[in-house]
Amino acid sequence: MNSQSPQLLVVGSVAIDWIITPRAERKESVGGSATFFAMAASYLAQVRLVGVVGGDFPPAAVADLRAAGVDTSGLEVVEDGKTFRWKGQYHDNMNDRTTLETHLNCFEHFAPKLPPAYRESDYLFLANIQPRLQERVFEQMKPPRLVGLDTMNLWISIANDDLRSVLKHVDVLTLNDEEARQLSGEHNLVKAARAVQKLGPKNLVIKRGESGALLFDHDGSIFSAPALPLEEVVDPTGAGDSFAGGFMGYLARPGVEPNGASLRTAMIYGSVMASFCVEGFSYDRLVGLDAATIQRRFEAFSALTNFERASLV
Amino acid sequence: MNSQSPQLLVVGSVAIDWIITPRAERKESVGGSATFFAMAASYLAQVRLVGVVGGDFPPAAVADLRAAGVDTSGLEVVEDGKTFRWKGQYHDNMNDRTTLETHLNCFEHFAPKLPPAYRESDYLFLANIQPRLQERVFEQMKPPRLVGLDTMNLWISIANDDLRSVLKHVDVLTLNDEEARQLSGEHNLVKAARAVQKLGPKNLVIKRGESGALLFDHDGSIFSAPALPLEEVVDPTGAGDSFAGGFMGYLARPGVEPNGASLRTAMIYGSVMASFCVEGFSYDRLVGLDAATIQRRFEAFSALTNFERASLV
Repeated sequence: MNSQSPQLLVVGSVAIDWIITPRAERKESVGGSATFFAMAASYLAQVRLVGVVGGDFPPAAVADLRAAGVDTSGLEVVEDGKTFRWKGQYHDNMNDRTTLETHLNCFEHFAPKLPPAYRESDYLFLANIQPRLQERVFEQMKPPRLVGLDTMNLWISIANDDLRSVLKHVDVLTLNDEEARQLSGEHNLVKAARAVQKLGPKNLVIKRGESGALLFDHDGSIFSAPALPLEEVVDPTGAGDSFAGGFMGYLARPGVEPNGASLRTAMIYGSVMASFCVEGFSYDRLVGLDAATIQRRFEAFSALTNFERASLV
Repeated sequence: MNSQSPQLLVVGSVAIDWIITPRAERKESVGGSATFFAMAASYLAQVRLVGVVGGDFPPAAVADLRAAGVDTSGLEVVEDGKTFRWKGQYHDNMNDRTTLETHLNCFEHFAPKLPPAYRESDYLFLANIQPRLQERVFEQMKPPRLVGLDTMNLWISIANDDLRSVLKHVDVLTLNDEEARQLSGEHNLVKAARAVQKLGPKNLVIKRGESGALLFDHDGSIFSAPALPLEEVVDPTGAGDSFAGGFMGYLARPGVEPNGASLRTAMIYGSVMASFCVEGFSYDRLVGLDAATIQRRFEAFSALTNFERASLV
């Protein structure tokens, strides 16, 4: 893409994970919300990344991001620090997981600093980090055309006011179903979504793992995107961030205007990238894709959901 | 419908439930798999019902079925017996439930006897009863054009051989996700579906509650039907049977040939009828619908799933 293309900035974690699944295990698995987001979005848009890693972060992973066209000049390297590390175990159903260890390391003192060129990015995605740090990103930027934000149960619990403050700037919020319930205090997902929309985000995406994702639109309509039924899920880590990358990446394509129709198409590109993500450890499956392969999977989602209209009247 | 219309026979339970939800309770709630199926299918096809009730079964419920156009001449009434009774409690999420009491009563000795006219029914749905009794229904019939069957975890556990025997005659099997896993021994749903299809049913519908339903087709394709996100679920009892009623009812309409395309459309009519069912206790919401109301909801499913194609290539 050329320099005239819209720029999509992601701010989030870059991590080294230790993943245990019922069938396999991978230590030193490169992860982090910004990593998955950037790899997924890189096929659709011009991506810039802000994050922090330690001296232990593998240069090959930075090279992978660059090879994918991601601008990593905003990736801070703390040479004498260690990268954020997360160890988790997936259970039989590959949906539930247990966090075994979390070491924030240099991520603990992460204060996102945007390179000057990043301050005029057209699209912004604030991946899951402390709401206060998300707010600080805004303060450094010219208002983007569209802002997406992800968060987690921890911040809903311990930084609720900060989260509510940052949500006022957000156009599209992504949550999983439990987070939507927690944030709204409503068990019913439709009621939960309506309550969350009142906090600021006109559009809400509720991610439901192998049940797909729901878009609650600014105009009150609901869109249901299925998950692709896969014969083998290798590692679900990063699926939600890859979804967000495909979703925001589509919206940031030249010529795409964010509206009810494009948000729906974006939901499918999000689902497409999530479906690739879970087929491998880390971002293995997100490397070396091409437009034709991604498009074939987009068509698979069409085939999965398409039905002929009939009428009783 | 006139007598030239295809005939859809359902054999299953007719029950009196005692339903407890987090918000309300109803004793003497008319239920049973055949009841929900018949009420839902009655808007789409010519339905005949075989079941058994005791002298305590409310005549008003039989009148409701007849008013819906259901032929109840196959409903056996054991005047000195009691109707099958089930008491269940739904938990906060309205998906999980606990069975508090089951009294088979006259259902314990149910032996389906088909009135002579029923033996040439074009379409047959064997709702959830003992596999041996399902087999006996076949023995009384001229082979129907299409056979659907539902079962439950209990029969997979204690009557597995009988179930496998009856499955050889089945064109469309409906199961929930846990039953599909139990029957196949596979956790992954795609693998589970492929294994179940090898047992006989060329087409498999996996019901997933508020996550919708998946159709694994005879030609290897997969169709995902969403559940309609509802602001209020009053009572989920009978949702799966109402789904089956809408599904089979559509297939049994004059001029509809069972094939890959019509099975998909049938999945949506099934989802439509399930969405009505859960909006009220018992079959309250399935009474007094009309074609236009049903069709509007069908269109709501179109709106829920429709997206514009885009291309990266």
